[in-house]
Amino acid sequence: MFKGLSSVNGDITDKISIDDRGLAFGDGLFETILVDYQDQSPHIYFLQRHLARLQQGCFTLGFALDFTELENDIYHLFAALNQSKNVPKQLRLKIIISRGSSTSGYRVPNGTVANRILLLSPLAVSTDMMAKEGVKLRSCQWALASQPQLAGLKHLNRLDQVMARREWSDPDIFEGILSDNQGHLIEGTFTNLFVVDEKGIRTPDLSACGVKGIMRQLVIEKLAKTVNVPVRETAFSTIMDAEELFITNSLIGVIPVIAFDQKLFSIGKITKRLQIALQNLRELRHEI
Amino acid sequence: MFKGLSSVNGDITDKISIDDRGLAFGDGLFETILVDYQDQSPHIYFLQRHLARLQQGCFTLGFALDFTELENDIYHLFAALNQSKNVPKQLRLKIIISRGSSTSGYRVPNGTVANRILLLSPLAVSTDMMAKEGVKLRSCQWALASQPQLAGLKHLNRLDQVMARREWSDPDIFEGILSDNQGHLIEGTFTNLFVVDEKGIRTPDLSACGVKGIMRQLVIEKLAKTVNVPVRETAFSTIMDAEELFITNSLIGVIPVIAFDQKLFSIGKITKRLQIALQNLRELRHEI
Repeated sequence: MFKGLSSVNGDITDKISIDDRGLAFGDGLFETILVDYQDQSPHIYFLQRHLARLQQGCFTLGFALDFTELENDIYHLFAALNQSKNVPKQLRLKIIISRGSSTSGYRVPNGTVANRILLLSPLAVSTDMMAKEGVKLRSCQWALASQPQLAGLKHLNRLDQVMARREWSDPDIFEGILSDNQGHLIEGTFTNLFVVDEKGIRTPDLSACGVKGIMRQLVIEKLAKTVNVPVRETAFSTIMDAEELFITNSLIGVIPVIAFDQKLFSIGKITKRLQIALQNLRELRHEI
Repeated sequence: MFKGLSSVNGDITDKISIDDRGLAFGDGLFETILVDYQDQSPHIYFLQRHLARLQQGCFTLGFALDFTELENDIYHLFAALNQSKNVPKQLRLKIIISRGSSTSGYRVPNGTVANRILLLSPLAVSTDMMAKEGVKLRSCQWALASQPQLAGLKHLNRLDQVMARREWSDPDIFEGILSDNQGHLIEGTFTNLFVVDEKGIRTPDLSACGVKGIMRQLVIEKLAKTVNVPVRETAFSTIMDAEELFITNSLIGVIPVIAFDQKLFSIGKITKRLQIALQNLRELRHEI
């Protein structure tokens, strides 16, 4: 069975240096990307959008990343994958970029160079069934810290998500939704949240906390336009008025929600139309 | 020259597994501890206090750590150090404890076991001169996120500190002081802050953010009593009324502040008496 394959700065290895600032401080960023792999030919979905977010994150955190080297790393990782047996058809590519290695405490020494860490692994979940049958959510007690200066980024400081995920072990619950400390619903531990209401689609405003997922942005910028429904990013604390509910994430796409705590939902028409729009976009297999 | 020595789960190595949750999510804790090393005999200052904080942190984050194994690791690391040449007399022992290794996203699989990562390195700063002559501080623009559920812990989510430390490169500035998003002074990037005023000593309340340093607690619980000055933990936004200012940290002890932005300070009597009290306590070399 294929368990995974990884590289660090282009070398196939499953070890990183102990002085990586990603370990020491969570000083870095990550992306998780869906890959189709058939006949030894990978398709990395929406790679340019993932790389653009990474570039934005590097800019905000204030370090440089050589994207040519990163693209070379990806190429070499898939070249090595071709030597592996029993590779499944759907893979997760995780890219971790840390600011680099240092032993100087928080100060970043001159000449520090970002580390590029790539991990390929089988997709842990079966997306087809979820996409058809929907998933159940719960609300989390753990409140997300507000940090407007880092909001939106997919950085490596993820204790809030880890702590929220510890709140349940029931395998029937697929995801937990976190609020900020004022009670506004923000996001799932690894997904973004969308509500279909009488005015259209709304999704939480992420200017103070939360991750702007690639699939979230795709819904806002492309898919909702395709199905001709307006989307607003706004603060809200309840989904009691929701007609449909769905969550998004790069790996699983657009997934209908059939229960949020005690409230039940049917799988709605707009959610289904968004799923079809995403499917069509994925089949085009060119960057948008 | 001695550059350092490290171990992971008892094995001398400078690599960790790429799937460590410390790297992936900052899902762990750390301690930095002062070590005296003379005639191949280490003294680890206030080790029991550091281990007790680690235990508290593990409890809050919700994972178990085998402290007997950790103490064995420390023993073996110093045994290996005895084979090294040119080891300086003062060392920094950094202990990183991550929740373990996993590839399952935020969910913690059953059977996940904490990883113990130890790093010994030369002390980067000369503490004697600083203790005598004092240091200069600046205030940071970067605001600390509030997260009462994690406040006080020395966890691995340290992007706030990294970003604040990027605000200056002037080597004359030893430390930057961060405020929360309401303007309350909280702490330095790697030190705690104390003010001597007409009522005694005050230090920021850390119930919403900040790290409760071992040296901070030692000042509050022991040293201030020794010099017979009351300490209060309280919220404040200015040091304009300060008669003396000092910062603390396990590695550097009690360090007088001679400038904070434009405001200048003399090295005060109470700061000096606290330094002597700490020196006396360190020379006792038994746990308190």
